[in-house]
Amino acid sequence: MNAPHMDLDEFRRAGHAVVDWIADYWTTLHQRPVTSADPPGTVAEALPGSPPATGGEPVEAFLADLDAIVLPGLTHWQHPGFFGYFPANTSGPSLLGDLVSSGLGVQGMMWATSPACTELETVMMDWLAELLDLPPRFSSTGSGGGVIQDSASSATLVATLAALHRASGGRWRGAGIDRRYRAYTSVHGHSSIEKAARIAGLGADGVRALDVDPDTQALRPDALRAAIEADLAAGDVPAIVVATIGTTSTTAIDPVAEIGAICAEYGIWLHVDAAYAGAAAVCPELRWSHAGLEYADSYCFDPHKWLLTGFDCDAFWVADRSELVEALTVLPEYMRNAASESGAVLDYRDWQVPLGRRFRALKLWFVLRWYGVEGLRAHIRSGVALAARFADHVRADDRFELAAAHPFSLVCFRLRADDDTNAELLASVNATGRAHLTHTRVAGRYILRLAVGSPQTTEAHIDETWTLLAEAADKLLTR
Amino acid sequence: MNAPHMDLDEFRRAGHAVVDWIADYWTTLHQRPVTSADPPGTVAEALPGSPPATGGEPVEAFLADLDAIVLPGLTHWQHPGFFGYFPANTSGPSLLGDLVSSGLGVQGMMWATSPACTELETVMMDWLAELLDLPPRFSSTGSGGGVIQDSASSATLVATLAALHRASGGRWRGAGIDRRYRAYTSVHGHSSIEKAARIAGLGADGVRALDVDPDTQALRPDALRAAIEADLAAGDVPAIVVATIGTTSTTAIDPVAEIGAICAEYGIWLHVDAAYAGAAAVCPELRWSHAGLEYADSYCFDPHKWLLTGFDCDAFWVADRSELVEALTVLPEYMRNAASESGAVLDYRDWQVPLGRRFRALKLWFVLRWYGVEGLRAHIRSGVALAARFADHVRADDRFELAAAHPFSLVCFRLRADDDTNAELLASVNATGRAHLTHTRVAGRYILRLAVGSPQTTEAHIDETWTLLAEAADKLLTR
Repeated sequence: MNAPHMDLDEFRRAGHAVVDWIADYWTTLHQRPVTSADPPGTVAEALPGSPPATGGEPVEAFLADLDAIVLPGLTHWQHPGFFGYFPANTSGPSLLGDLVSSGLGVQGMMWATSPACTELETVMMDWLAELLDLPPRFSSTGSGGGVIQDSASSATLVATLAALHRASGGRWRGAGIDRRYRAYTSVHGHSSIEKAARIAGLGADGVRALDVDPDTQALRPDALRAAIEADLAAGDVPAIVVATIGTTSTTAIDPVAEIGAICAEYGIWLHVDAAYAGAAAVCPELRWSHAGLEYADSYCFDPHKWLLTGFDCDAFWVADRSELVEALTVLPEYMRNAASESGAVLDYRDWQVPLGRRFRALKLWFVLRWYGVEGLRAHIRSGVALAARFADHVRADDRFELAAAHPFSLVCFRLRADDDTNAELLASVNATGRAHLTHTRVAGRYILRLAVGSPQTTEAHIDETWTLLAEAADKLLTR
Repeated sequence: MNAPHMDLDEFRRAGHAVVDWIADYWTTLHQRPVTSADPPGTVAEALPGSPPATGGEPVEAFLADLDAIVLPGLTHWQHPGFFGYFPANTSGPSLLGDLVSSGLGVQGMMWATSPACTELETVMMDWLAELLDLPPRFSSTGSGGGVIQDSASSATLVATLAALHRASGGRWRGAGIDRRYRAYTSVHGHSSIEKAARIAGLGADGVRALDVDPDTQALRPDALRAAIEADLAAGDVPAIVVATIGTTSTTAIDPVAEIGAICAEYGIWLHVDAAYAGAAAVCPELRWSHAGLEYADSYCFDPHKWLLTGFDCDAFWVADRSELVEALTVLPEYMRNAASESGAVLDYRDWQVPLGRRFRALKLWFVLRWYGVEGLRAHIRSGVALAARFADHVRADDRFELAAAHPFSLVCFRLRADDDTNAELLASVNATGRAHLTHTRVAGRYILRLAVGSPQTTEAHIDETWTLLAEAADKLLTR
């Protein structure tokens, strides 16, 4: 007896229906509240307690339940009024490229397990490196190369592991953490840096969260040098520095050139995390933000944030791929094959934590071909211009102040009022369902963040959001 | 100026075209060679050296290049003649559920960032736990719960981290690896166990690869006890035991109940890796393979292997979710929110390595609803029956021998000849392009592996593959 597999005529029919459902969702997205007001448990309670004993429902029944149960419970990240966190925007071409990946269903863990999956990825990473004008050392044609990770968190982890391999002189692979290794970043380094250090066995105590310049919120090179010297004096081993281009709180830009010179002096691995802001480097006029990158041993940015490619797609490069592979490779008999043993191919399983790999290069290929270099630049410029427009609104209202520079598409601002009032302002605007912003703290102060990324966001959405903020401020300041 | 985003009419049109392209691929898949014979570099050389300056090509141009450049360079994992490694099979419903995920483009890192993404996942993991008749302690309605990981490799890593947190009495979070922790598995434990131990800072030396019973290839409990005692005597800290249900080489089944009793005696975390064979537990008649699971602190299996759900989808459960969250949580200001602080919700970012999360529960929901419990059982039974049919062919030919039991859908066999001859046999059959098998070594001997998983595989494919093997043996043995 065979399972009732979906036959291919039904797949075509249902597939068209799902494509149309998605197009309808995108068409009506701007009318929905950006977030759900339902309490915890609402979605779970609407679902049956057990899987159905028999199948056979048409896909239309699934789509009806998506409409009735799932959509009301979502935060709509693709909504033109979504300004929270960092953007995570996708696009039609990305979606279709990923659909092809689902349809092919191949595994790219090794070159031999699907050669085109590896080779297209290598070429796409070289294309991206050219698109961002990255240093030549990251190209696969030399000793470096790029790979798709699921996220910048995993990129930081992988960089940390390669750094430990280097800092230990190769000892770490066998012996593990048998001395105190240290990682360095600024107090505004992403939480994934501490998470990576914890995972790698350095412990939270192994991370030096360094002071920043109070004007720029960027890491202070003198603080880095002092921390390294103190650790060396204590007999600890400095392993990795993570510099950030575009911190999560305020898109601050660490001085990579100065940091890199220090790393070179002490022989410490430099990883540069440009998860969000890296995409800006597709525009020549924004490449100043990447100054000093030639010092980096590894670098990453997320096309799934601000480059129209659906999650997950973090682009990660190393200057010396052999160090990374040495750190991570494990070769059981059941994976041995002639191609790997020839040394003529890349096996991306050795560049990442998991073994299995989806064919993620397809969505990048579709995005890069659909938009072309100029199309992607236009998208970045649109985000920067919309953020600048919002910042102009803030500047024109004396009740508000900008809280940081806005070189990219994030604007940090606040009411000239106490933290609680700012928190109320945020809650009040978010409760309208027309816009969704998030917050941070800088030097202890509560700051609102507005990050632009959706291709659907226009000047009208920016202006509407500003009006909502100004009206909410009216109420808060006159009560 | 806006980038030339794909408008929604074009998305509908192109989306239908991609769905049809996939249906055509599946329809003609059985006619293709399973693997590519092209040398390394073939695909890369066929691609332009740079991204296009401008976009604007229709998606049909991308599909034409897929046909011309990509398909000839693939190993076709969905092919009815693909019998390599373990299966990684998808299905129409999975593909459509994942397409919805791409279209929604939400982030499920926290409950607050898209409540339905978290709640549907929790419910689907409870459904799966019921489907496999897992111990009640893994249900989210108690102190446990399930989460989707990208792969069993990541599940093993996460289990290792939670185990270190427990073994250290909470010290590991801050101090990292500051003593020698040990992990235990059999010599047939998956390579990801060593990789997880290396990543976690235990080093390869921290893994005890234990002897197996020569008849069953299953871990010997007495060897485990002896290793634990030796490590304790040396002052080391036993942290985790990884038992396997269905090893990669031969689908051997470790004696989980006996191992679990030892873990309970010494207070060691027990992780059970059933990456491939876990799916078998949907069938009541195969649940004997999961005996002793009530001892496990964590358990995983891959719906993306043998349960018709596209990669990536590893289902991972813990008996005590608070230990896992304590081990992994990092809470920066920009992620603080009222729902998380209420304690009433699950934030899955704290259950995994990455921060970001795709809405992967949708594909599981579509698969479980489309097939229903009985449909999934039929799929598993079909694989077991096809493997048994193949094993009957092996038994009926005196030149061959079975190399292990075949409780699931993997058959291990060999020619009664030397290893080189067996390797030639494998290469010869794979070179036909009609079938693809891989190999392993057991007790030093070269073994061929045939793993059934594709919904398209029928008795005719099994019989054809056997004929290819028998004919190749004719040539090899008479030359």
